[in-house]
Amino acid sequence: MNLRDYLKGIKLPDDEIMKRAQEKLGNMAIPIGSLGELEVIVRRVCGITGSILPSVDKKCIIIMCADNGVTDKGVSSCPKDVTKQVSINFTRGITTVNSLSDHAGADLHVVDVGIDADIDVPGIINKKLRKGTWDITEGPAMTREEAVRIIETGIEAVGELKARGYNLLGTGEMGIGNTTTSSAVVAAITGGDIEELVGRGAGLTKEAFEYKKEVVKTALQINGPDSSDGIDILAKVGGFDIAGLAGVFIGGAYHRVPVLMDGFISGAAALAAVLIEPKVKDYIFPSHGSAEPGTRAVFRALGMKPYLDLGMRLGEGTGAALGFNIIEAAMATYRRVGTFDEANFDKYVPLD
Amino acid sequence: MNLRDYLKGIKLPDDEIMKRAQEKLGNMAIPIGSLGELEVIVRRVCGITGSILPSVDKKCIIIMCADNGVTDKGVSSCPKDVTKQVSINFTRGITTVNSLSDHAGADLHVVDVGIDADIDVPGIINKKLRKGTWDITEGPAMTREEAVRIIETGIEAVGELKARGYNLLGTGEMGIGNTTTSSAVVAAITGGDIEELVGRGAGLTKEAFEYKKEVVKTALQINGPDSSDGIDILAKVGGFDIAGLAGVFIGGAYHRVPVLMDGFISGAAALAAVLIEPKVKDYIFPSHGSAEPGTRAVFRALGMKPYLDLGMRLGEGTGAALGFNIIEAAMATYRRVGTFDEANFDKYVPLD
Repeated sequence: MNLRDYLKGIKLPDDEIMKRAQEKLGNMAIPIGSLGELEVIVRRVCGITGSILPSVDKKCIIIMCADNGVTDKGVSSCPKDVTKQVSINFTRGITTVNSLSDHAGADLHVVDVGIDADIDVPGIINKKLRKGTWDITEGPAMTREEAVRIIETGIEAVGELKARGYNLLGTGEMGIGNTTTSSAVVAAITGGDIEELVGRGAGLTKEAFEYKKEVVKTALQINGPDSSDGIDILAKVGGFDIAGLAGVFIGGAYHRVPVLMDGFISGAAALAAVLIEPKVKDYIFPSHGSAEPGTRAVFRALGMKPYLDLGMRLGEGTGAALGFNIIEAAMATYRRVGTFDEANFDKYVPLD
Repeated sequence: MNLRDYLKGIKLPDDEIMKRAQEKLGNMAIPIGSLGELEVIVRRVCGITGSILPSVDKKCIIIMCADNGVTDKGVSSCPKDVTKQVSINFTRGITTVNSLSDHAGADLHVVDVGIDADIDVPGIINKKLRKGTWDITEGPAMTREEAVRIIETGIEAVGELKARGYNLLGTGEMGIGNTTTSSAVVAAITGGDIEELVGRGAGLTKEAFEYKKEVVKTALQINGPDSSDGIDILAKVGGFDIAGLAGVFIGGAYHRVPVLMDGFISGAAALAAVLIEPKVKDYIFPSHGSAEPGTRAVFRALGMKPYLDLGMRLGEGTGAALGFNIIEAAMATYRRVGTFDEANFDKYVPLD
């Protein structure tokens, strides 16, 4: 299947199931609406999976790893080699997302969609088109065909994981320079002010920070991405990692699996995916509000609010890993909490 | 021991241990500070427990249950009897906090500090002084001696649980009318505007909502609590539930156990506890920002930010139950994540 077929196959979550889930929620022995977002989660997971009692017990974070040509311009405080090393470290179990996903009982699915190195490490799935994108300040990051291919890679990863029984996914990434490309993608989609979108990433000097903003502006000017075409934006100012994650969100919608969005880079990918196909939005769940300033623009554009506010700015999928527990807690409560009959008192009535 | 002795025994978290924890954090293979609040949690839990590798593996929510005389004034959409029924339901495992605490692997410790009924149910600990407070619109809720006794009850509960091996606590409550008393307590402490503090609780009509605000104003006018005396405020416009929870926070500080604060009612108790002894603040961890409007004033006054924003307004300890996972995840990551040597790359250097 190709991207066009996948996009045609995407439907909205099942409205009938969502109504039935709401009825069940209404019978819980609590004031109506008092569980806030937990109730929204329940309705959405039911509608997405098409089940009135869905399981969310097998979880995985898909981590898209790639290098970005723009790092040649010095937009990051880290050497490019860190992309390769951290990607390998995911398979050695020694990174932060390993620890947080283990704590959540989630697996990792690490995909090399363009690391700038020859990697032959068990546990890193080789889907590399080439070693890193081109420099977005000098032209597009990749061809349109490459962008489509990498998006399909993301969709296929979801299909594979669903076939292996995974029913709740999260996104993560590793790619030095990808706060720069994400800023360009978010700016292209939202029309937001570069000055407000761009952050210091892993830690930049003031000069390097000013320079990074100039780099993003240059990338947008040189490439002139079409603000109504998500694929064009990903190809021109994105990266293989962001495009792969956009595919994961699209894949979630096609394969009807809820996907937890990590922080800023995942957010840029989510925005692009929703621009490509608006129905994808209903399959995306927020996790944390990253400290990266552009995250606010992402949430505004998606019309969502993060569940967690922990001032994290590490990426890797660490926020998504923490978000799993909220989805699981919501579903566990829905499955189990007593109804009014059992609870021995009249239904609370919202009198307003 | 009495309250005065407990208060004298409270010290700040161990600064030396916090510094050592920070050093360990600094050796993690991540950009410094990129785990945000998770790093703050690690330092604080280490400092509180006095251990460089503390365990947070045995968790309990202390639920203080009591009735409030002010419910005679019609400030709640629920009948008073719900306090008793839900308290009993905690022991039957059918409430929302049962489900969320089971999901978190936490136990419940349900204490009757003044339910307006004779209750003889295994699992409800009888610490009742009397059946509900007096109506705060007509005079104080309780005597100063009663307030002190109930605060001591909360401290003693923490001592008992610590002796049984619990190393992470949360707060919860059940008491119809307690958003009214909490609003009065928070207003008395912060001097905040009643119009902004008072919310609709479980769901009030517009008329009942206006009336509730008048009730809070009347309670403050009639009783004139001393804004510098937390015990006076709890006695005059609080409740047995809030006073018991204030004791839990003080007990956390005395017994050096981290305590996760639930929503608005727990927040009112936390503010009172910190007013009684400012060092208590260092032992309190936020969980969620409840939808109850006064919660914002609580966080402002405590100088904290909630970890979770889920628009919940159920109470019972449901927010604290969700917060456990964040503390555990932070500690699990700290215990395990690779140091720079293992990770095969140079330390990230924040260049700012």
